[in-house]
Amino acid sequence: MTSADEAASLGGALDDAASDDARGEPLTIAQIARRAGVSIATVSKVVNGRLDVAPETRGVVEELIRRHGYRRQKRPSKPAPLIEVVFHELRGLYGIEILNGVARVAREHRLAPVVSELEGRHTPGRGWVEDVLARRPTGVISVFSRLDEEQSARLRSRGIPLVLLDPTGEPEHQAPSVGAANWNGGLTATRHLLDLGHRRIAVITGPEHMLSSRARLDGHRAAMDMAGVPVDPALVCVGDFQIEDGRRFTHQLLRLERRPTAIFACNDGEAIGVYQAAAEAGLRIPEDLSVVGFDDLPMTEWAIPPLTTIRQPLHDMAAAAASMIVTLAAGEPLPRHRVELATELIARGSTAPANQG
Amino acid sequence: MTSADEAASLGGALDDAASDDARGEPLTIAQIARRAGVSIATVSKVVNGRLDVAPETRGVVEELIRRHGYRRQKRPSKPAPLIEVVFHELRGLYGIEILNGVARVAREHRLAPVVSELEGRHTPGRGWVEDVLARRPTGVISVFSRLDEEQSARLRSRGIPLVLLDPTGEPEHQAPSVGAANWNGGLTATRHLLDLGHRRIAVITGPEHMLSSRARLDGHRAAMDMAGVPVDPALVCVGDFQIEDGRRFTHQLLRLERRPTAIFACNDGEAIGVYQAAAEAGLRIPEDLSVVGFDDLPMTEWAIPPLTTIRQPLHDMAAAAASMIVTLAAGEPLPRHRVELATELIARGSTAPANQG
Repeated sequence: MTSADEAASLGGALDDAASDDARGEPLTIAQIARRAGVSIATVSKVVNGRLDVAPETRGVVEELIRRHGYRRQKRPSKPAPLIEVVFHELRGLYGIEILNGVARVAREHRLAPVVSELEGRHTPGRGWVEDVLARRPTGVISVFSRLDEEQSARLRSRGIPLVLLDPTGEPEHQAPSVGAANWNGGLTATRHLLDLGHRRIAVITGPEHMLSSRARLDGHRAAMDMAGVPVDPALVCVGDFQIEDGRRFTHQLLRLERRPTAIFACNDGEAIGVYQAAAEAGLRIPEDLSVVGFDDLPMTEWAIPPLTTIRQPLHDMAAAAASMIVTLAAGEPLPRHRVELATELIARGSTAPANQG
Repeated sequence: MTSADEAASLGGALDDAASDDARGEPLTIAQIARRAGVSIATVSKVVNGRLDVAPETRGVVEELIRRHGYRRQKRPSKPAPLIEVVFHELRGLYGIEILNGVARVAREHRLAPVVSELEGRHTPGRGWVEDVLARRPTGVISVFSRLDEEQSARLRSRGIPLVLLDPTGEPEHQAPSVGAANWNGGLTATRHLLDLGHRRIAVITGPEHMLSSRARLDGHRAAMDMAGVPVDPALVCVGDFQIEDGRRFTHQLLRLERRPTAIFACNDGEAIGVYQAAAEAGLRIPEDLSVVGFDDLPMTEWAIPPLTTIRQPLHDMAAAAASMIVTLAAGEPLPRHRVELATELIARGSTAPANQG
């Protein structure tokens, strides 16, 4: 029977299945094959993420697994000693901090990190989840990227735990997650500038669809509001967390009639862009312009002057996510579904009291 | 029979084996078990990198495999779709460039990179090779780290290809490797400074045990020699490729009675350290001091001023190494055993004509 024949014969399989009690025992591979009217080998291919199965057949088998669950007939084969780390893109030191955090915990448990890079997309494309199922990792950590509902369901159906690291967009309530206290960080950054006497404080944010970025901006607004300083809309720039955003917006801000005396850049990359623009405009940091970043990547220490920033404990966040994978893979419950690690102000050389005037 | 018993009974196994023709057919798992006087399950454990085998037993089995080779009885099981990337340490943007290069080729072949990090050691410790054998990757790329002879032999005995990326220390002739034209790069860096009229040119190198570092220094010496400019030993500083080395040695160099007008830092990190020291000493780059780096990491573009450097095509080197793995894993011969990619001068803002005087 070819895959095409099988797909054609699937007629009422799902309807029959739907009439069963969906809350019963998970199905074995043989039961799934019987209900779908396909061979056990075909179900096995779908379960193992092989691609040589007709899409319709795969759809029916996946739907049966989604509804009823899937139970291995023999004792469950051990997952591979891998932790899958999905990056939406691997750029800059951010990724290194996270990989090292995962590796620290992985080593203790004799697991190795596998890197998937999504070439800048925030949701993995087709083929990605098949490859992951074929690798059978102990768990998946999704960094700044979001699996779609089908991808999450397919990991769940194979018992592969998923943990989100600083998810963007709407929180996905089914998967546990690790984040940083972004709102507090934004509040702290701006309070630091207010305490130094700054009132014209600009902010350069990340993309609006990222919760982390929104939270930092909201923290900034809260600090301004509590200090009784109105937020001037001309001083709020929506960037994309890139160095060039910091540079471009700073040039724009410095051309304002009443230019800011301080800039809160919502990540360290943007802060480096602020440095560039200040140098190009002949302004000194911090004498003429104070700058606060966010992340505390290693490069901030060797900027000239060293950058005042909000430390986001990326290494520890990644280690926490890896520990959650280990716990879930052992079949144990998580103490908490959402972990937020504290951010803190690291005051270095890029902030100074505002000039009177 | 316990593992201890087995180990005790191994007496003449190796001697018997040694008397056989070492050039014969590779042994099957059953033949190895018979010769070693242990169970097939025990040999299988050793082959698969399991740790619950007494060291003596493992030693005898490994030695039999080393001498005779090992032939899988069934058709060889396909390796896992993984490329193992071994870093001696994951620090800085270097690692990101390499991972992206590996990922580019890996994606085309539906392989995923697995990261091993050696916590700063240059040779993987015990346990590492067992973990790799258990993962059964399609191949191993060793970045700036060197497997010892036993580790290499164990990969070979399982048919797991190994490619070295810019190996340090003595070249290991058995494994294919990818490097950059380091000597040419050193020559080009110093020629650029000589062409600008500099004569007091200092060099800050990497560790002496790294061939890449030695080659860059030798290229520097050759350029000086060909220009008839003697190398002043006071201007040669042996560093460790860290930012802090650049900073510390520059302070030292600037205290000399006849201080250098230009510094060739043998990697970009050290060049950033030169920037720091220059700022601390109140010197302007390039007006008072010219600086050339090596690597062309992304950070060099956004240094202030942007760094003149020698581009080492890390991304392409890593992609070349991954392609070699794919070729070897397919059982095909490599067009060449050693690949060297060209380096090139990227002239930016950190070099200027020497002041007359």
